[in-house]
Amino acid sequence: MPQRNGILLVVSGPSGSGKTTLCRRIANERETHYSISCTTRPPRPGEVHGRDYHFLSVEEFTRRVESGDFLEHACVHGNHYGTLRSEVIGYLEKGMDVVMDIDVQGAAQVRGCEDRMIRSSLVDLFVMPPDETELLARLSGRGTDSAEVIALRMHNALEEMRHWPEYTFRLLSGTQEEDYLRFKSLLLGERLRVSRLQP
Amino acid sequence: MPQRNGILLVVSGPSGSGKTTLCRRIANERETHYSISCTTRPPRPGEVHGRDYHFLSVEEFTRRVESGDFLEHACVHGNHYGTLRSEVIGYLEKGMDVVMDIDVQGAAQVRGCEDRMIRSSLVDLFVMPPDETELLARLSGRGTDSAEVIALRMHNALEEMRHWPEYTFRLLSGTQEEDYLRFKSLLLGERLRVSRLQP
Repeated sequence: MPQRNGILLVVSGPSGSGKTTLCRRIANERETHYSISCTTRPPRPGEVHGRDYHFLSVEEFTRRVESGDFLEHACVHGNHYGTLRSEVIGYLEKGMDVVMDIDVQGAAQVRGCEDRMIRSSLVDLFVMPPDETELLARLSGRGTDSAEVIALRMHNALEEMRHWPEYTFRLLSGTQEEDYLRFKSLLLGERLRVSRLQP
Repeated sequence: MPQRNGILLVVSGPSGSGKTTLCRRIANERETHYSISCTTRPPRPGEVHGRDYHFLSVEEFTRRVESGDFLEHACVHGNHYGTLRSEVIGYLEKGMDVVMDIDVQGAAQVRGCEDRMIRSSLVDLFVMPPDETELLARLSGRGTDSAEVIALRMHNALEEMRHWPEYTFRLLSGTQEEDYLRFKSLLLGERLRVSRLQP
């Protein structure tokens, strides 16, 4: 029997906030399960099925929504995204922490979930880019996209950033090492929470 | 204006749990105020007024209780102990974290306090010795006390340990370095809490 239930660390933030790097890094370093989302959008070059996403057809996605297989799902820019319950519940029961890198719609669904295990496990964090100048630099940084694409990305990021007050925790991004220290600290500190200990 | 209100980190645990070492160390390393308690018991050899305790006469202590100067106060083994409001409130308002090393009675009073600043700042932690064998070793370790004194200390420690489920966080003591990492992580993680940010 594990001594405690796992933590469900829900992490949101715009592109350029560095949230995905944080989530991937903690999943590599510690015994934390990185929850792989499902999506109906086609894989980008270099993306691997089962590592970056579970790539599903619209039909398969819809069927699994109807079966109640999803913990959360949302439609973002015309594509479906979602997290299967099987990516989360079993791990939490075994005392393993699960990190979910999801958008604000998905996070709101998880926050509204009535499942007792989810509610007691949840720790939700919004990662904020330091300021708009730095955000623009990060979003432009790849150097391969048109001004129009960058402007759209910036618009979407600013929209998403309006939601930070809905979260319990907020990390204002600084350097990568500072960010990671604080991110890891949040998880280590939450592991001491009495309400998550098993009797 | 500070960006957030300070954290009031209330730490309890029996003698031998290592809580005082943790509290002193974090107050030295970080910009954290170590709250100095008042007591009516006489100073022990090496204890310094204003560093270890504010040593007050019973008359002075009683007068300040009646003036409402104490955030919490309790009588333990025939001596009065208490924390002055002035050791806490001003620091929290300035965005500085305050660490209070107090017993379970004092912690219960702080937890029951209706002051809004205190309520929103509070993070309460119980530090548990790893097991009874190790605790006995730690309580006997000084090598200068009679079996009777050690037995009384052990009895008091076991009594105090019964209260850990009243706390929000519990740290099960391991090595000093592990303990300190987890203790510091709790503080760093709590610094990200949105409800403590100032508008």
